[in-house]
Amino acid sequence: MSSEFKYPRRVNFADTDLAGIVHFSTIFRYMEEAEHALWRAAGLTIAARGSDLGWPRLGAALEFRNPLRFEDEFEVWVRIAALKTRTIEYEFTLVRGKTVIAVGTMTSVCVRKNPDGTMKAAEIPPDIAQKLQPFVS
Amino acid sequence: MSSEFKYPRRVNFADTDLAGIVHFSTIFRYMEEAEHALWRAAGLTIAARGSDLGWPRLGAALEFRNPLRFEDEFEVWVRIAALKTRTIEYEFTLVRGKTVIAVGTMTSVCVRKNPDGTMKAAEIPPDIAQKLQPFVS
Amino acid sequence: MSSEFKYPRRVNFADTDLAGIVHFSTIFRYMEEAEHALWRAAGLTIAARGSDLGWPRLGAALEFRNPLRFEDEFEVWVRIAALKTRTIEYEFTLVRGKTVIAVGTMTSVCVRKNPDGTMKAAEIPPDIAQKLQPFVS
Amino acid sequence: MSSEFKYPRRVNFADTDLAGIVHFSTIFRYMEEAEHALWRAAGLTIAARGSDLGWPRLGAALEFRNPLRFEDEFEVWVRIAALKTRTIEYEFTLVRGKTVIAVGTMTSVCVRKNPDGTMKAAEIPPDIAQKLQPFVS
Repeated sequence: MSSEFKYPRRVNFADTDLAGIVHFSTIFRYMEEAEHALWRAAGLTIAARGSDLGWPRLGAALEFRNPLRFEDEFEVWVRIAALKTRTIEYEFTLVRGKTVIAVGTMTSVCVRKNPDGTMKAAEIPPDIAQKLQPFVS
Repeated sequence: MSSEFKYPRRVNFADTDLAGIVHFSTIFRYMEEAEHALWRAAGLTIAARGSDLGWPRLGAALEFRNPLRFEDEFEVWVRIAALKTRTIEYEFTLVRGKTVIAVGTMTSVCVRKNPDGTMKAAEIPPDIAQKLQPFVS
Repeated sequence: MSSEFKYPRRVNFADTDLAGIVHFSTIFRYMEEAEHALWRAAGLTIAARGSDLGWPRLGAALEFRNPLRFEDEFEVWVRIAALKTRTIEYEFTLVRGKTVIAVGTMTSVCVRKNPDGTMKAAEIPPDIAQKLQPFVS
Repeated sequence: MSSEFKYPRRVNFADTDLAGIVHFSTIFRYMEEAEHALWRAAGLTIAARGSDLGWPRLGAALEFRNPLRFEDEFEVWVRIAALKTRTIEYEFTLVRGKTVIAVGTMTSVCVRKNPDGTMKAAEIPPDIAQKLQPFVS
């Protein structure tokens, strides 16, 4: 898919656990790194300093097909499956060469943060939606 | 549910991110901690030294309802939704007081590890299945 | 030492790496957890919501004597070696039974955070210094 | 220094904590990533599959000069300060542009792992010492 963004990564030592493979929670971190790299490719940042916008997750899911090991080089492919008024749905595939490591989804919601730390769902600002549009498929 | 196991936890500083809340990948780690505490309550350990058994995840999913913050005290409720020949399906609810933080699922598969590091799905040993039985519901 | 605070902990699966032992960076996290538990024992929190105070580290060091493994139960002993005008110097010993796992030090500085995110060293408020005093030795 | 190895990195979201800066324990992980990148540059890997060699840390220390924030781009400069019979002493400087973020040291010891998981200090194999030699200064 032309709209898929590809984020290359190498497995770090601290990403592994005693089973000798990458800990499953770290695969979720790889997903997030790819998401944020996509934002940078779109000319955006997910956490602009001084901004009251936030993007907490509503949900995240992964199916694990094959393990990753120390110093493995792999890619996270990410695309935006749905760009809605307040939410963004991402789809991810992690691959090492021709081997699929994992497939997954993540949904984030746009919020505005109050001074007391609470958050309220908000509409995605039009300029952000426009810049993310090329990654929607 | 009487068969539900409850794991108490407090949020550590390093569990949080710049948004001031627990990072979503850390919620998956809380799930795993509760799973392993359930195994201990069953008189088991998920990683016996010298054993060739392993329990990698086939899948993991969470829906996030409310954020957790530094030093929040919460519980992870975990039960075994299905104990099959080779797989274990867990269901989780994270609660802080009466507030639901997240709900999720995780499926692990029993494997035997070869000396070269590769893994092959295997039947769950009967003594392990028997000890986990009280947590199935 | 009567002024030493003891924080009990068990090793989680995600704390380990492919060498089968706790990753060295995680030992630094255990130190911090003990520090924050000491603050709670003193009736304080290191990160009060809405406060402009922060406690970044000036330095941290550990010597590693013996490894920790999955599900090991251990204690972090922490004491305040020096409570100065703007800084706090901690000393740590991690023990599993009679085995010393690691010894280390950490120095934090009191800062006030500006709205733009920058920080400026500040005097430790007297009420905080007073509550920490019982842990100084 | 001509023998200094430079490892470029960008701060990930999950590297930060509620103070809005990179957690101090993560700076130790950056050090390790640079060490392992140096090994790769030397034609080596710190964790060859099937090898009984290990490189646990004897000590690690950092002084923190300036904070790192989300998406900051920085470099870890690493050199081998002493390559001894059984130990390697590294020195690190983290810089963001002309700003020094942190300076530190780390000492690792060569061990051979026994089948039961215990470890015994061992001499660094000559071929490894030879390949690391260009990074000694």
